[in-house]
Amino acid sequence: MSFPSDLEIARNASLKPLDDIASQMNLPAHLLEPYGRDLMKIDLAAIDELSDRPKAKYVVVSAITPTPLGEGKTTTTVGLGQGFKHIGKNATVAIRQPSMGPTFGIKGGAAGGGYSQVVPMELLNLHLTGDMHAVTAAHNLLAAVIDNHIYQGNELNLDLNNITWRRVLDVNDRALRNIVVGLGGKGDGVPRQTGFDITAASEVMAALALTTSLEDLRERMGRIVVGYNEDGEPVTAEQLHAAGSMAVLLREAVKPNLLQTLENTPVLVHAGPFGNIATGNSSVVADRIGVRCGDYLITEAGFGADMGAERFFNIKCRTSGLRPDAAVVVATVRALKAHSGKYKIVAGKPLPPELLAENPDDVFEGAANLRKQIENIRIHGVSPVVAINAFPDDHPSEHEAIHQIAKEMGARSAVCTNFAEGGKGAAELAQAVAEAAEEPTDFRLLYPDEASLQEKIETVATKVYGADDVHFSLHALQQLDTYEKAGFGNLPVCIAKTHLSISSDPKLKGAPTGWTLPVREVRASVGAGFVYPICGDMRTMPGLGTNPAAFRVDLDDDGAITGLS
Amino acid sequence: MSFPSDLEIARNASLKPLDDIASQMNLPAHLLEPYGRDLMKIDLAAIDELSDRPKAKYVVVSAITPTPLGEGKTTTTVGLGQGFKHIGKNATVAIRQPSMGPTFGIKGGAAGGGYSQVVPMELLNLHLTGDMHAVTAAHNLLAAVIDNHIYQGNELNLDLNNITWRRVLDVNDRALRNIVVGLGGKGDGVPRQTGFDITAASEVMAALALTTSLEDLRERMGRIVVGYNEDGEPVTAEQLHAAGSMAVLLREAVKPNLLQTLENTPVLVHAGPFGNIATGNSSVVADRIGVRCGDYLITEAGFGADMGAERFFNIKCRTSGLRPDAAVVVATVRALKAHSGKYKIVAGKPLPPELLAENPDDVFEGAANLRKQIENIRIHGVSPVVAINAFPDDHPSEHEAIHQIAKEMGARSAVCTNFAEGGKGAAELAQAVAEAAEEPTDFRLLYPDEASLQEKIETVATKVYGADDVHFSLHALQQLDTYEKAGFGNLPVCIAKTHLSISSDPKLKGAPTGWTLPVREVRASVGAGFVYPICGDMRTMPGLGTNPAAFRVDLDDDGAITGLS
Repeated sequence: MSFPSDLEIARNASLKPLDDIASQMNLPAHLLEPYGRDLMKIDLAAIDELSDRPKAKYVVVSAITPTPLGEGKTTTTVGLGQGFKHIGKNATVAIRQPSMGPTFGIKGGAAGGGYSQVVPMELLNLHLTGDMHAVTAAHNLLAAVIDNHIYQGNELNLDLNNITWRRVLDVNDRALRNIVVGLGGKGDGVPRQTGFDITAASEVMAALALTTSLEDLRERMGRIVVGYNEDGEPVTAEQLHAAGSMAVLLREAVKPNLLQTLENTPVLVHAGPFGNIATGNSSVVADRIGVRCGDYLITEAGFGADMGAERFFNIKCRTSGLRPDAAVVVATVRALKAHSGKYKIVAGKPLPPELLAENPDDVFEGAANLRKQIENIRIHGVSPVVAINAFPDDHPSEHEAIHQIAKEMGARSAVCTNFAEGGKGAAELAQAVAEAAEEPTDFRLLYPDEASLQEKIETVATKVYGADDVHFSLHALQQLDTYEKAGFGNLPVCIAKTHLSISSDPKLKGAPTGWTLPVREVRASVGAGFVYPICGDMRTMPGLGTNPAAFRVDLDDDGAITGLS
Repeated sequence: MSFPSDLEIARNASLKPLDDIASQMNLPAHLLEPYGRDLMKIDLAAIDELSDRPKAKYVVVSAITPTPLGEGKTTTTVGLGQGFKHIGKNATVAIRQPSMGPTFGIKGGAAGGGYSQVVPMELLNLHLTGDMHAVTAAHNLLAAVIDNHIYQGNELNLDLNNITWRRVLDVNDRALRNIVVGLGGKGDGVPRQTGFDITAASEVMAALALTTSLEDLRERMGRIVVGYNEDGEPVTAEQLHAAGSMAVLLREAVKPNLLQTLENTPVLVHAGPFGNIATGNSSVVADRIGVRCGDYLITEAGFGADMGAERFFNIKCRTSGLRPDAAVVVATVRALKAHSGKYKIVAGKPLPPELLAENPDDVFEGAANLRKQIENIRIHGVSPVVAINAFPDDHPSEHEAIHQIAKEMGARSAVCTNFAEGGKGAAELAQAVAEAAEEPTDFRLLYPDEASLQEKIETVATKVYGADDVHFSLHALQQLDTYEKAGFGNLPVCIAKTHLSISSDPKLKGAPTGWTLPVREVRASVGAGFVYPICGDMRTMPGLGTNPAAFRVDLDDDGAITGLS
């Protein structure tokens, strides 16, 4: 008998009424807004109303540098949330909303896996409560206002070759990456080149993830820079009179969504910003609520600890004021073996068979990556815990190797079998996290607001990525100068680079040294609240493959969804 | 003291819990799905479950040919629904979902007006429960699959110059009307010209309005023709393997939304297809449910009786199998005066002052339009009732003129003051409608399924529009031939023409005779289930003006929406 599919497991879950889940969290009914049968939104008034309650231990889940297959970070996050129940504690999980484009692309859906899933997975992976669509609508309203402004006479003197605001759609559609708009007749707008990104890449999404209130979100919308005028000065959404309408479109989207795991652990799902050009973390408001709702709040950060966790510390926590108590670093045997540099793992293809043979030496050879990512947690003053996400082909000697590496680094570690076994498979990890979170913390940001943008980039590059140096192109230096002069110098930085290496070269495995980070250009998400240097090719609109999930997803005779994973 | 704004009135409404509204309709709780605090969806299982209940009287609200300002048809529809309570009867109202694009354009929001509104107006005019967004997502997923199919080798041999499927967004964005996609490098798709329409113009929206079940919607998605191959044969969404995913994206959108009026009359809001290139009617499934929930179901049809009502009879009722019992024709003094041909009314400008002077003779001079629209109801075997939507500047002698015209045509008539007074201002109309609906009906479709497409077009043109003849371009005749051969000949026709005249020339007022309908091309919405000849310039993507509502809509200090109308 084969292991059931995620969708089969999810379909057989016994969901509790969300009212009961909210009761577990001590959330009063007047803060809850049901959306359909198995979804709820939570009113932001919860932040103030619950602020007197004791703060939960705040735990971020990160990872070693993943292979293109991913290392089961969401599965571990969900499993850990479930695991706390097995050691007699209440936990809440906070994750990003999955992007719908990839649901119909290669992935088919994402919500953890096996017996550690968020349910209902079909709602989570499709529209949920419409937040993504609201982001799309707000983003594209601003785009329409920009092109209308140009068409009506361009009073603000926008430089048509320097409009940085594109459009967005939550679909994998490569044909929209580069387009020319405004064709047709005289009444059909002014022709110019632009394009669409996927909604997860929208600055509106990044702002939604970092905002602290609806009022704050309104101000962030106003600060969005859409491009520059002929004098090189930034032009904002406020100047275009679009920010009020954008905030109105986001009035419901700003409320976090409540779902549950297969074992009825509460899950806050909110915002879904990209992990390379944006923070890759779920929302500040969800965490601010969740941290008042139990013993532990487990929040997930995108990609490896150099990426999502660094942004979690230096951007998200800087904004929220919340201090983390522990950080989980998810590691797998297969990824550590890959970090030895001996194996090539390609998405959509079977693993190389030799990778599956028992070989703890290869795990040790790839250990540099795990060590460096543990250090990347430590330099922020947070206690790391290594979660060994077990796969069926792993060998005990290989798990032992990871335990040993963690121990040498002074970090706790635990094997997780929660994919196959649910929460009880993560009870040991929950215990390790509980112990780590009891240690005295000394949380620190890596750089102060006052440092220059260049200093901030250099700090992250050398301290977190292990680069020797940073090389700024002339263009990048000019842009940094422009941003400093425009008053954006106090923002944190979000370095857009590959997630497949701690360096900026996806081919370099382990913990690369002796390299220089190349910054070819720098962009500013002023509304979201960060500056992002571009260090590599950042794809912001995926395409569909030859056999996308869109071909398989369908309704069965009972109207239930099939093919979602 | 000035009359309060629509938003002020709506803000002061005392909404009932929707559970109570549903109880009024005898809708059992297990069929209801709350969406936030003041919205609900109704499960389609209601159609079967309630099928044994007595059928309500089914009343369609139409109008004379409107001026560009509109004649208050939705206000009358909502007021009439409220009015029935004042004569001791239960009514349910069914309307289309407003398009969000125009909400930020010229309109600022639409949900009736004055004391005859659907509430909460800010939810109705924005995302509602996300149905529009689901239509956008389903439509654009198909577009992405089409361009991906071409990129991956174009196995189906799609003719790049004959792809009729565009993309959609619910925003007024003229720059998207005509675009070139697929620019950039080799990996960024195949360049071709295309464009975006507003979501209301999507065939998916038209299909949602006409579908009878989720299963039926799945089949309609499969039948959608996206373009033609190099041999001129139609290529469908089913052939592209996209129809299942599209239906999955519409699984929640297929459920009608329940709201209420200011006086707590139940309102079903569902689907929002365009009134020129599509049916301009709300959904079949909403009407099928609503017709089992009280004494009267009042459903609105777009534009004048030649447009929305004709499609209501010949497309919507043909699909639903429901038989109407009465039809309201909304008339205003100002529109009838305009039909005299003496006045020019322009949207966004003040009315000509001479139009406001007491002048029943001008009303009589414009009466031909009202007479013809009454006849357009009668030829379908349905009893017409004239609703005189009163404006503050009207004079009693002018209302009397309309009464007299109606009487000469053997139609009941009533003055409605429901904008200013709410339901009691429509009690007289409710009484007239109740009487008309008691008359024996002889409902008949204007043409059988078996008639040729050309015959169907000629029938509507001559019998409803009063044209002498139809002129088909050679291109149109070829297309009709293609459609007949492809098996689409059994579909009804939806003639896309101006709504500002019964003819195809917006400048011709009254009831034009001695003219010929020009059919320059014909398109097929095979998934939605109709063929639509194009008779005039059909704008399917609006633009923003110099001072759009987007500039005024904002949040106040309490987070409430301002500027929505």
